[in-house]
Amino acid sequence: MKRFNDLSDLSTEEIESLLKLASRLEHEPEPRALEGKVLSLLFLSPSLRTLASFQAAMSRLGGSSFVISPEMSIHGLEARPGIVMDGAAAEHIREAVPVIASYGDVIGIRAFAERRDLEYDLADQEFENLASLVNVPLINMESAIQHPCQSLADWKTMNDLDIPSQGGRFVLSWAYHPKALPLAVPSATVRMAAQRGMDVVVLRPPGFELPEKIMQDASRLASENGGSVIETADRREAMEDANIIYAKSWSSTSNYGDHTGDQDLRENLVDWCVDEPWFESARKDCRFMHCLPVRRGVVVTDQILDGPRSIVIQEANNRMKAQMAVLHRLLKG
Amino acid sequence: MKRFNDLSDLSTEEIESLLKLASRLEHEPEPRALEGKVLSLLFLSPSLRTLASFQAAMSRLGGSSFVISPEMSIHGLEARPGIVMDGAAAEHIREAVPVIASYGDVIGIRAFAERRDLEYDLADQEFENLASLVNVPLINMESAIQHPCQSLADWKTMNDLDIPSQGGRFVLSWAYHPKALPLAVPSATVRMAAQRGMDVVVLRPPGFELPEKIMQDASRLASENGGSVIETADRREAMEDANIIYAKSWSSTSNYGDHTGDQDLRENLVDWCVDEPWFESARKDCRFMHCLPVRRGVVVTDQILDGPRSIVIQEANNRMKAQMAVLHRLLKG
Amino acid sequence: MKRFNDLSDLSTEEIESLLKLASRLEHEPEPRALEGKVLSLLFLSPSLRTLASFQAAMSRLGGSSFVISPEMSIHGLEARPGIVMDGAAAEHIREAVPVIASYGDVIGIRAFAERRDLEYDLADQEFENLASLVNVPLINMESAIQHPCQSLADWKTMNDLDIPSQGGRFVLSWAYHPKALPLAVPSATVRMAAQRGMDVVVLRPPGFELPEKIMQDASRLASENGGSVIETADRREAMEDANIIYAKSWSSTSNYGDHTGDQDLRENLVDWCVDEPWFESARKDCRFMHCLPVRRGVVVTDQILDGPRSIVIQEANNRMKAQMAVLHRLLKG
Repeated sequence: MKRFNDLSDLSTEEIESLLKLASRLEHEPEPRALEGKVLSLLFLSPSLRTLASFQAAMSRLGGSSFVISPEMSIHGLEARPGIVMDGAAAEHIREAVPVIASYGDVIGIRAFAERRDLEYDLADQEFENLASLVNVPLINMESAIQHPCQSLADWKTMNDLDIPSQGGRFVLSWAYHPKALPLAVPSATVRMAAQRGMDVVVLRPPGFELPEKIMQDASRLASENGGSVIETADRREAMEDANIIYAKSWSSTSNYGDHTGDQDLRENLVDWCVDEPWFESARKDCRFMHCLPVRRGVVVTDQILDGPRSIVIQEANNRMKAQMAVLHRLLKG
Repeated sequence: MKRFNDLSDLSTEEIESLLKLASRLEHEPEPRALEGKVLSLLFLSPSLRTLASFQAAMSRLGGSSFVISPEMSIHGLEARPGIVMDGAAAEHIREAVPVIASYGDVIGIRAFAERRDLEYDLADQEFENLASLVNVPLINMESAIQHPCQSLADWKTMNDLDIPSQGGRFVLSWAYHPKALPLAVPSATVRMAAQRGMDVVVLRPPGFELPEKIMQDASRLASENGGSVIETADRREAMEDANIIYAKSWSSTSNYGDHTGDQDLRENLVDWCVDEPWFESARKDCRFMHCLPVRRGVVVTDQILDGPRSIVIQEANNRMKAQMAVLHRLLKG
Repeated sequence: MKRFNDLSDLSTEEIESLLKLASRLEHEPEPRALEGKVLSLLFLSPSLRTLASFQAAMSRLGGSSFVISPEMSIHGLEARPGIVMDGAAAEHIREAVPVIASYGDVIGIRAFAERRDLEYDLADQEFENLASLVNVPLINMESAIQHPCQSLADWKTMNDLDIPSQGGRFVLSWAYHPKALPLAVPSATVRMAAQRGMDVVVLRPPGFELPEKIMQDASRLASENGGSVIETADRREAMEDANIIYAKSWSSTSNYGDHTGDQDLRENLVDWCVDEPWFESARKDCRFMHCLPVRRGVVVTDQILDGPRSIVIQEANNRMKAQMAVLHRLLKG
């Protein structure tokens, strides 16, 4: 493994093997496994969980990391090719990224979508531009449409709780949020649940359909792994016998990059706040998942987050454990 | 020990035992004692010494740490219960704190007082709200009324210099500062000196009396340990035969949370700047302490800071050494 | 070695010995050499490469580091002596620096020139004020006129590529940049190339002559090591048979500290952008060096940076490798 970018680059067996490694490292710590090894963490977009969990993961294996983040006085990095740099940016990614990468044995990069052009974002062009400048093992820490570390942690969380793969029902639900958010998490999540062989329902209001390319990928993964994928706007139908509801807000795809159009659609959807009545037709033990950060009382009620359905803290904690396995695999083989 | 919050939670013997451990770790380093262990550092208020000394302390024991600080793009953390989060804050402490804590084996939290309501701050309610979300060993890195790491370092500094406990005279003096500052350091310091069995004098102008609850706690600790506590506004009387003057500015307690009232009282007190004439009635070898940062020429003159009385650099250096002992005790027992 | 400040404090033999150590540490890693040791990194000016490369260097040797940077809420540090600190700054360097230094076994300090008074900057007064407060081994991470880590990495880069020392021709060329930049890199570079025994040409437009003191030091170093130093404004003459062109922009020295005067001189010099025609009279394999960050299309064209002449990424990577040797030498002898 030289690149951890798209979870579906790995076979289901390889994923389960990574999670077995995660479990081994938890129960039989290897505090010197990555002695003298360095992880470069390049954040072009903000982070809290990813920042903390990667540093902790590397430390627990005896390695260490350094962080380059957008808060630093790095004057902004220019990314456009062929530009005359007489403005604010003092450095181009063509220098900064290879140099930062060369200080480490592995690099993690985060770069959110620009959310101007859907095709550009679906091609993950911004991340690929950065990735092409790196010649050490690479971890995608969230790009326009990928978030494999989150997906691996989510898969692990469902395994830990014995949520069935084949036959398990996974509802990915849009939720209200005052701002238009990136597509990375829903795009990664629908494919993850499909690859896990689950019966996946994407529940979303009109205007928030997931991009066709993402749905096609998810359908292919489902059919290869004994699952299924459907989309609906009908909450009750979606939640029928659900094992999991995974809530997330995302941008309107019918008005992608159009701030006003997105807001107009969104403002009538404040009732898309996950609450106990949503679970009426679900399995009694249906669990609530979210990648965090989550806005209480907006995306989901306090009652759900503070109640027994919520497994969001375990999910976030599994980020560290899953990433330990990824780092170990990338650096130790 | 599962929590290092209030120095007086420890008996005097336990404190001396911690300081013995600090001394052992200084003279017989244990650079692998905390191998693979992680310290989460959560700063909701700014820091320099605490940030640096905790990272260095953990490193010297072979562990490591990660930092979440207010400069990061973490959008602000919401702390109010039951709120609909449709404003600027994107995350609630009820998610952020347990997650951050779960990445480490021990967590340090700093959260300054709001300084609106004295009762609220005296109950240390903000810190307790955060602490209740954590289920790993916890270190208070300064809250509304606690600063046990500073107090342990100060106790060590006096031990190192053979400042007597029983019979030693410790003057905690208010000093001028252009801004109203928190009560944490004076509250922690008066109790520390009392618990060390010293004869403690709180020297402060009218309107800056320490809260009754703090003084009562200090008096109880003094009587249990052979010391005494008094308050006065008379500088000469206070300094009589003093071994130590510990300067610190703090908010007016008679005008707590009232910015204008505090400023009105304060503006006539610019002569509360510790200078050589203050020491006229003190012991010849009377030392000057301060927790830093200190404003030169405002809180204390250059002559004192640069002269032989000052032990402020040793105090700050002892932060690291004391914290090494705290971390060792919390993680190795 | 107790201080790594001016490369020419070391003899040529000592420099070559450091580079031999760098090479050994690359090929025979010592991931526990600095176990339990701490590097304090104090940045009073911004950084990306230095920040990352020092953290990585320390980690690869088993030590660790902490960072104090200008982005932190440290309220600004006051540096003026004898001042009454009733303004914004809450701490003086006379407290902050010794304390930060005392948490580490070695300290790195960066403080750019004020660029108001040339004599003051040439005396490196600001850095020396900071350095005088430190009593652990000290590394200059760039001051008003020093940048020994960059110079050591540059020397290594030329060795790695078998660029001849005696007889090799090294052109340090001024280049256009919209802003007036510090003199540290050109001052350090001209002396480095001279000490390496090369035939050094400083190519610069009128008004951008390097300070006489720097040129005298460079000439002395050249004569001691079998090289030479000249200055010219004639590009073709300068580039004749050159092995290296090292581009860098810097402030006008004839208008030092005079913003408008500098801008007036500079605005007519946009053609000082290194491009392929510059190399007409140079050796065919003449290489392009730059310390980074570099503005593409302003200081140098994309064609050069992306072509075979450019060795800027190797230079930057050698920062880490050279610094590993410096840290090892300072801490292990």
